[in-house]
Amino acid sequence: MRFVVFTLFPEMLAPLRESILQRAQEAGLIEIRLVNFRDYALSKHKNVDDEPYGGGAGMLLKPEPLFAAVRALPESPGASGRRIVLLSPQGRVFSQRVAVELSCYEELVFLCGHYEGFDERIRALADEEVSLGDFVLTGGELAAAAMIDAIARLVPGVLGQSASLQEESYAAGVLEYPQYTRPEDFGGRQVPEVLLSGHHARIARWRRKESLRRTFLRRPDLWERLVFTAEDYSVLEELAGEIPALGEWRDRWRDLAPRPKTRKKKNSSGGRGEPGRTSGHWP
Amino acid sequence: MRFVVFTLFPEMLAPLRESILQRAQEAGLIEIRLVNFRDYALSKHKNVDDEPYGGGAGMLLKPEPLFAAVRALPESPGASGRRIVLLSPQGRVFSQRVAVELSCYEELVFLCGHYEGFDERIRALADEEVSLGDFVLTGGELAAAAMIDAIARLVPGVLGQSASLQEESYAAGVLEYPQYTRPEDFGGRQVPEVLLSGHHARIARWRRKESLRRTFLRRPDLWERLVFTAEDYSVLEELAGEIPALGEWRDRWRDLAPRPKTRKKKNSSGGRGEPGRTSGHWP
Repeated sequence: MRFVVFTLFPEMLAPLRESILQRAQEAGLIEIRLVNFRDYALSKHKNVDDEPYGGGAGMLLKPEPLFAAVRALPESPGASGRRIVLLSPQGRVFSQRVAVELSCYEELVFLCGHYEGFDERIRALADEEVSLGDFVLTGGELAAAAMIDAIARLVPGVLGQSASLQEESYAAGVLEYPQYTRPEDFGGRQVPEVLLSGHHARIARWRRKESLRRTFLRRPDLWERLVFTAEDYSVLEELAGEIPALGEWRDRWRDLAPRPKTRKKKNSSGGRGEPGRTSGHWP
Repeated sequence: MRFVVFTLFPEMLAPLRESILQRAQEAGLIEIRLVNFRDYALSKHKNVDDEPYGGGAGMLLKPEPLFAAVRALPESPGASGRRIVLLSPQGRVFSQRVAVELSCYEELVFLCGHYEGFDERIRALADEEVSLGDFVLTGGELAAAAMIDAIARLVPGVLGQSASLQEESYAAGVLEYPQYTRPEDFGGRQVPEVLLSGHHARIARWRRKESLRRTFLRRPDLWERLVFTAEDYSVLEELAGEIPALGEWRDRWRDLAPRPKTRKKKNSSGGRGEPGRTSGHWP
C-alpha cells in the first residue's frame, strides 16, 4: 500500500520513519512518499498563501500549487485505485472503522492544509474530507501521521506475529481488559489471582467481565451499541450485582438467559410432565 | 507552559520542532522536554517490556521504568501545578474542550505507551487518561504530539497576530464558512460575489449563513447542540427555504422572531389599537 502526503512541512511526518512503520517500509509492505507542494508554486517567490477575500485574519492556502501537485501524480494504480483525502476539521471524524475502510485502497493521498485555512476550491481535489477529531491543529500533518499509523497497522504483515489485541477489542466495540506483566507484586500492587491460575476458561471469563465493566463505566456511548452473546449472560448478571446502575440495562440481555434444561431433565427422569414443557409455567 | 513527554521513541515527537511550535519554543512561550524512560529500566539489558500474565499475544510495558522516571521529575511547579496524562484508548476522548482544560496547567506530563499495551498498575501514575479518538495507534507518541499542538496553540502569544478563526468557530460550535483567496477565477471556479462587495455586514451575514448550512449538512451532532441568537432568525428562515429538512427544526428558533414593532407604530400613528397589542391576534 502506498501513502502520498502533500505538505509544506515534510519534517512533521518524521514519526513515520520510526518503529513499526519504519520496519514495514523496509519490508516493502508499505511505501510513504512526501511531496512538498511549495515546489509547485507558480510565482517567483514560491508563495503558497494569500489573504482572504472579504477580510479576516490569517492567510489561506492558494489553490494553484496543490492543484498542480495533484495533477502531477502518476496514473492511478491498480483496481482498488487511489483515494484523495483532505485533512479538514469539517470532514467526517476518523475512527477505526474509517481506518479499515481506507486501508482497502491501493494508494492514499493526503492533502495537508496549514496556516489559517485553505481556499474553498481546494476541496474539489479531494474524494473526501476527514478530521482527526473535534480539535484544532496547526496543520493537517499530525492528523495525516496519526491516520497513516492507524491504517498501516491494518496492512497484512505490518504487525507481524504480535497479534493486535487492541484492534480486536475495538472491532468488538469494548474496551480492553486490564493486563499485567512481571513483577507479581509491585510495591504492594498485586496481579489478580486468576491470571496466575493457568485456568484458561476462567481467565477468558475474567477478561470478558473486566472488558464489559470498563466499557460500561468509561464509555457509555460504546456500551449502548454493544451486542451481547449468550456466553455473556452469567457475566452480566454478576456485574449487575456489583454495579446497580448496570442492572438497569438488564432488558438487553434478559433473552440470553439459558433455558432451564436441567429442570426438564429432572422432570423426565421422574417420569412426570410432558416433553418440551417445563412444569407449572403453563396451565 | 511546560510539556514533558515520557516515551521510548523520542524521534516520534520531532514534529514539535517545526512551524509554529518551534517559534513558540524559541520565544520561550512553551518548553517541551522529551524523556526516554528506557534510561530508567533497572535490568542490565534495559528491558522495558515483558509477557502478559494469563497468556495472550504481544508484550506489555513493565511498571518499574515509568514509575522510576516519573518519580525522578523535579518538584511540581507553581500554583496551577502539574497534570500527568496517560495516553490510552480507554481515556476520555480528546476535544477542543479538553485542550482548553489542559492548557490551564503549568506543566503537562504525557506518558506514552508502546508495544501491545501496558501493565495495569501504570494507570496509578496518571491523574487522568486521554484518548486521541476511537482508533488504534502504534503508541501514544502521535497522540501526544497532536494534543500538544492543539494545547500549545491556546497558550497566549503562540499564535501571534494571526487570530484563530478556527478556534472561534469551534468555540461557537459551528463549522467554519468557506474561505477564498486569489485568483478570483480559478479555472472557471469563481469567488462568491458577496466577498468582493466590500460590504461588511453582508459578508458577515453570508459567512454566518454558510457556517450554519455546513454545520447542519455535515455535523448533525454539533447542529443539535447549537444555540441561536436573534440575529440568526432571518438567516435560518432563508436556509429553511433552501433546505426543507432544516425547516423541520424551526421550533428551535421560532421564539427569536423579531416582534412586529413596525406594525405597532403604524397602529399608533393611526390612533387605533391599544399599546402593547398587535391588531387582530387576540379576540
